[in-house]
Amino acid sequence: MAQKPSIPKGTRDFSPEEVLKRNYIMETIRHEFKNFGFQPIETPSFENSATLMGKYGEEGDRLIFKILNSGDYLKKADKNAIKEMDSTALISSISEKALRYDLTVPFARYVVQHQNEIEFPFKRYQIQPVWRADRPQKGRFREFYQCDADVVGSKSLWQEVEFVQLYDAVFNSLNLKGVTIKINNRKVLSGFAEVIGAQDKLIDFTVALDKLDKIGEEAVKKEMLEKGISPEAIEKIQPIFNLNGNFSEKIEGISNILKSSKTGMAGIEELKFIQQAIQNMPLQTATLDLDVTLARGLNYYTGAIFEVAAPEGVKMGSIGGGGRYDDLTGIFGLKDMSGVGISFGLDRIYLVLEELCLFPDQIKASTKVLFINFGDRESLYAMKAVSKLRKEGIAAELFPDDAKMGKQMKYADKRDIPFTVLTGQEEMEQEKYTLKHMKSGEQDQLNFQELVDKLKS
Amino acid sequence: MAQKPSIPKGTRDFSPEEVLKRNYIMETIRHEFKNFGFQPIETPSFENSATLMGKYGEEGDRLIFKILNSGDYLKKADKNAIKEMDSTALISSISEKALRYDLTVPFARYVVQHQNEIEFPFKRYQIQPVWRADRPQKGRFREFYQCDADVVGSKSLWQEVEFVQLYDAVFNSLNLKGVTIKINNRKVLSGFAEVIGAQDKLIDFTVALDKLDKIGEEAVKKEMLEKGISPEAIEKIQPIFNLNGNFSEKIEGISNILKSSKTGMAGIEELKFIQQAIQNMPLQTATLDLDVTLARGLNYYTGAIFEVAAPEGVKMGSIGGGGRYDDLTGIFGLKDMSGVGISFGLDRIYLVLEELCLFPDQIKASTKVLFINFGDRESLYAMKAVSKLRKEGIAAELFPDDAKMGKQMKYADKRDIPFTVLTGQEEMEQEKYTLKHMKSGEQDQLNFQELVDKLKS
Repeated sequence: MAQKPSIPKGTRDFSPEEVLKRNYIMETIRHEFKNFGFQPIETPSFENSATLMGKYGEEGDRLIFKILNSGDYLKKADKNAIKEMDSTALISSISEKALRYDLTVPFARYVVQHQNEIEFPFKRYQIQPVWRADRPQKGRFREFYQCDADVVGSKSLWQEVEFVQLYDAVFNSLNLKGVTIKINNRKVLSGFAEVIGAQDKLIDFTVALDKLDKIGEEAVKKEMLEKGISPEAIEKIQPIFNLNGNFSEKIEGISNILKSSKTGMAGIEELKFIQQAIQNMPLQTATLDLDVTLARGLNYYTGAIFEVAAPEGVKMGSIGGGGRYDDLTGIFGLKDMSGVGISFGLDRIYLVLEELCLFPDQIKASTKVLFINFGDRESLYAMKAVSKLRKEGIAAELFPDDAKMGKQMKYADKRDIPFTVLTGQEEMEQEKYTLKHMKSGEQDQLNFQELVDKLKS
Repeated sequence: MAQKPSIPKGTRDFSPEEVLKRNYIMETIRHEFKNFGFQPIETPSFENSATLMGKYGEEGDRLIFKILNSGDYLKKADKNAIKEMDSTALISSISEKALRYDLTVPFARYVVQHQNEIEFPFKRYQIQPVWRADRPQKGRFREFYQCDADVVGSKSLWQEVEFVQLYDAVFNSLNLKGVTIKINNRKVLSGFAEVIGAQDKLIDFTVALDKLDKIGEEAVKKEMLEKGISPEAIEKIQPIFNLNGNFSEKIEGISNILKSSKTGMAGIEELKFIQQAIQNMPLQTATLDLDVTLARGLNYYTGAIFEVAAPEGVKMGSIGGGGRYDDLTGIFGLKDMSGVGISFGLDRIYLVLEELCLFPDQIKASTKVLFINFGDRESLYAMKAVSKLRKEGIAAELFPDDAKMGKQMKYADKRDIPFTVLTGQEEMEQEKYTLKHMKSGEQDQLNFQELVDKLKS
């Protein structure tokens, strides 16, 4: 019995239309990456397990797909782990490779491994799939693409400015107007913790604060109290729950709270630098906004934190994010390499463009004209024209079999091919081509040059 | 201690230059695929093991990378296999997914699974990586890209004609002139076996014949004798060892041998059809040649067999191959779907283009101009120009730190950036930009529009 075919849960097949739409997004991003001077690298789909394990926390380790060693893998297996039937303990002796979990750790590994070939600051981009053994759910997959741009080897805040402009450029090119680029700074968050005397509870504090959007002020405060932050401390930072106004006004609002914290004020200076630069070089269609609740993977970031929200009215989580991390490559032995980078969420951007009908029509149109097949002799005549059209850059096809006319027409229709050409006895004798516009039904008898002109127009 | 970073054997990191060169090849192939009416699909990197196992023979099964189940995978492990320490027997109970081994089986699975959404004949292309646990060696990797185009759902020989034209179009676009597209037909090979009464030894016979190029006539005959093919039988097919002349002359030569074999003559008719069509529509820079020793994965192919050889003088195995297989989707329960397809060998094409210096120069040039950083005030002036240049489609960068001039110039030089711009106090006052051509050292003071014009020319 033949197997009924299926694919693993959390993975996807992409149809021609989906591939073309995804490529459109990726090509747009790639184009802007290049325009901004980023260079592409690619790394292997699987890395040595030692490269990945321990870099994403305990939960991350669990979600990394491990590859079974080839051959007689049990030969070197940890006998004790087998005896105890301890899955976790056994892994390292039967699996030494694992699928990439993100692009950041492989990038750090790449930088350290190739440090002598690289000119720093190194501006790289990378668009490749990653894999996570997460529980699949709507919009969450076990295989998905990441589109990352990072710079390592410079602490200049011009990088941050540039990433704000890059987000603006990409979303503008995608015709997705009105996104909000939210920015925050780890130093500002540290400053808050410092002024309320809760440095030791920085993570708890920011994890709670990060939820303000979703659960509201009261619930956030409740969570802070539960984590041992005093009511007096919360009172002290009350203004951050009601920050209003534009970027500058918000900055003013938090400056009052942070004035006693050197770290906090350093964060404010950074935010000001970025905002002023952007004010001097206005964004095309995006808006830069300060969001002091933004934390993301806080442990990671040391300076700027970015997140991009879809235009108002579109229900969607963030469609991009990033930030600065001061010691990206330290885990692989190369100290003092500050990095900053951003990422684009391909799958979510896809959904947003779909919802707003922003995919250009021409993406789908792959083949322009189908030649109807009337038999071998006519087909040779048709194929000669097809070949010449292709050399003119016009995507053309001959239906391969002399099936019934209706079937061939239906094929053109189903595939959204806008034109068909009929080449029967009469056309051959007169060296003509009968071009039919599928939608209007209009027909013209043309010579070859007229055919080219018509199809190109 | 930090780990010394490395990657698994048989895998590769790709530097910016390598990615750009690889993308150039893939984009050229993709462009012609589209021109010929092929549509892209993508399938997941890993499939259910049942989809892949048993499709590539015993050796293939061994070379498939298996993914360890997530979580407590030992819970469902085959206790008996563990007791016996039987690695092979244990696999299916601890691993249910495996990395794609080629693009053909996933394509067959896709066609069957999505048969109701597909218009047949279905012309699809697919450019994605595959993984094999082969012993790595020069030019053989554990992760590599395949670039495939296939048509399913038509037995028309126009497809074969089209694939010959497609090879010609791609290699011509890559400026790789003089490749030889070798063609053979499974039916011709069957015919040979039939006329010498060795139908039961078809595989042995063709495996030996396929080596003619490498080991020579005597060694091939010796191998045939060892496999139990009689000296009289070999005598009968002697002419195929000395086939000379052009395509038509070779056809004539084998027609004499095959005239008593219906199958063989059917193969000859197919070859003639393809050759005559190509004669009527001459190839641009490739040559079509008959090679009756060509077998490739014989078990697979039922009609045409293709292989592409690099231009004479370039030592390289085949840079492409393919053929017709009459029952592609039968393994997944969809009968009677004839398919024919070809593949491009990305890694080898890369090596050939490298050897013949055929990569266009402009591929490498990513960033066109670097603005030198003189400090924050000057940088804002520079960044404004950088932003505007990017909107003009000119890839521009600002060096992020106000490092020493020499260091910044060296950076431009190392990165092959052809121009730098200096924007000091004087330039700012006069709203000018000093453009320096890195190679000649020539400098010009320009206004913004002149700068754009110069950089675009």
